[in-house]
Amino acid sequence: MSISNTYRFFVPADAIDADQVVLNDSALAHQIGRVLRLRPGDRVLLLDGQGSAYTVMLTAVGREQITGQIEQQETAGGEPAISLTLYVALLRAERFEWVLQKGTELGVGMFVPVTCANSLPADRADARKLARWRRILREAAEQSCRGRLPTIAEPQPFAAACTQAATADPALLLWEGSAPHLRETLRTQLALPPDSPVPADHRQPPTISLLSGPEGGITPAELTTATEHGIIPVSLGPRILRAETAPIAATAAIFYEFE
Amino acid sequence: MSISNTYRFFVPADAIDADQVVLNDSALAHQIGRVLRLRPGDRVLLLDGQGSAYTVMLTAVGREQITGQIEQQETAGGEPAISLTLYVALLRAERFEWVLQKGTELGVGMFVPVTCANSLPADRADARKLARWRRILREAAEQSCRGRLPTIAEPQPFAAACTQAATADPALLLWEGSAPHLRETLRTQLALPPDSPVPADHRQPPTISLLSGPEGGITPAELTTATEHGIIPVSLGPRILRAETAPIAATAAIFYEFE
Repeated sequence: MSISNTYRFFVPADAIDADQVVLNDSALAHQIGRVLRLRPGDRVLLLDGQGSAYTVMLTAVGREQITGQIEQQETAGGEPAISLTLYVALLRAERFEWVLQKGTELGVGMFVPVTCANSLPADRADARKLARWRRILREAAEQSCRGRLPTIAEPQPFAAACTQAATADPALLLWEGSAPHLRETLRTQLALPPDSPVPADHRQPPTISLLSGPEGGITPAELTTATEHGIIPVSLGPRILRAETAPIAATAAIFYEFE
Repeated sequence: MSISNTYRFFVPADAIDADQVVLNDSALAHQIGRVLRLRPGDRVLLLDGQGSAYTVMLTAVGREQITGQIEQQETAGGEPAISLTLYVALLRAERFEWVLQKGTELGVGMFVPVTCANSLPADRADARKLARWRRILREAAEQSCRGRLPTIAEPQPFAAACTQAATADPALLLWEGSAPHLRETLRTQLALPPDSPVPADHRQPPTISLLSGPEGGITPAELTTATEHGIIPVSLGPRILRAETAPIAATAAIFYEFE
């Protein structure tokens, strides 16, 4: 049985009881029964979002409810070795949503929207928007074969984001001004000479926080706030990246280094 | 005089004659005179797209023509040490244009659109589209402070793209199946042990070709064609990236490694 071409869905962990699955979700029932036209006897891969994957044979496909029989449980693959939390300034809607989608594909574990001096105001991030963002994360996670569902927090002011980000080691801030290159900083932070490789047995830093600013940039006062929290400014090189490009380029580089 | 906040424009190299600049370009004249409202005496940074930057004081701002006096010539910054050509399958318009924009910001030197078995047909890429793509490259290059203007070729069939790509060393193909990770391949290709760093004095591979497939994927026959040309399949890890995400993630990783 090939799993690679099987449809994948994240489901609530409490929908799984011993070897049975009961999904009371009319949107998912519509997707499975009407859009994909799956029938009892067809198999799907269900992910509990907490690291387990279940091969499930559908036993009933209704309008409101799907039931199934678990045939196999395994550890969900597709997760990176490291845990990266992306603190990203609120950007214009399509750019922000694009960061969520691409970041999820690449492996981001958690997103924290941040309000900055130069970013859009937080009051534009209402509950409806948060629900939309979660749908984007779920769809991207299913499509990219993530093993866990990334989370997204309520928007936070910059200083609060710094406090939270500083609990990871290293905590990095993307900075367009003069700063060491991300590459050197990652290797230095891992107590390696700047031009050393990251050795195979060291490919698991506990957690990384990455902060990224808005279209209008991080202000000097915000830079000071970040460095006072022990957050390290890093550069991605001499070219000026757009506010949505920089966090994705840095995320790609981090997973390139530590996958 | 601060250059960092100066408006930057790519102009034809033949517009520059000794210490004088004559620009017969009504679109640029509109942008400079009407949109930005620059006047004689204001300064701009002009780039010849071939590696030189000119600080220019405007001497006349007309509807059809701009003239200026060159005050300073210098080597344009913002260019990466390596030359990366991105061979990217034709994707749906907005995704393809997004690859052009992000790739330009990151430092791609040349784009080659490729028609694959599973990609959109080449006849959708007419002259009008090529002109639009060139505008996207120019705008992204100006905004990201590139020193050179990336080029874009006419669309090529996959086999022809392989022949051209193989002239670079290394030539890489992004492959979702089983393949060594980009990181190991780059380091092996540079004759370094897979887990070694890239040493500082080795940070200049001559050129890199990177091939990236369409939404429907590279076919087994295309994979064979590529490997017969000596092109090396590489992986970006276990997650499945969208057709527009993969080339940008790989580009970010390559410039992270070699900037």
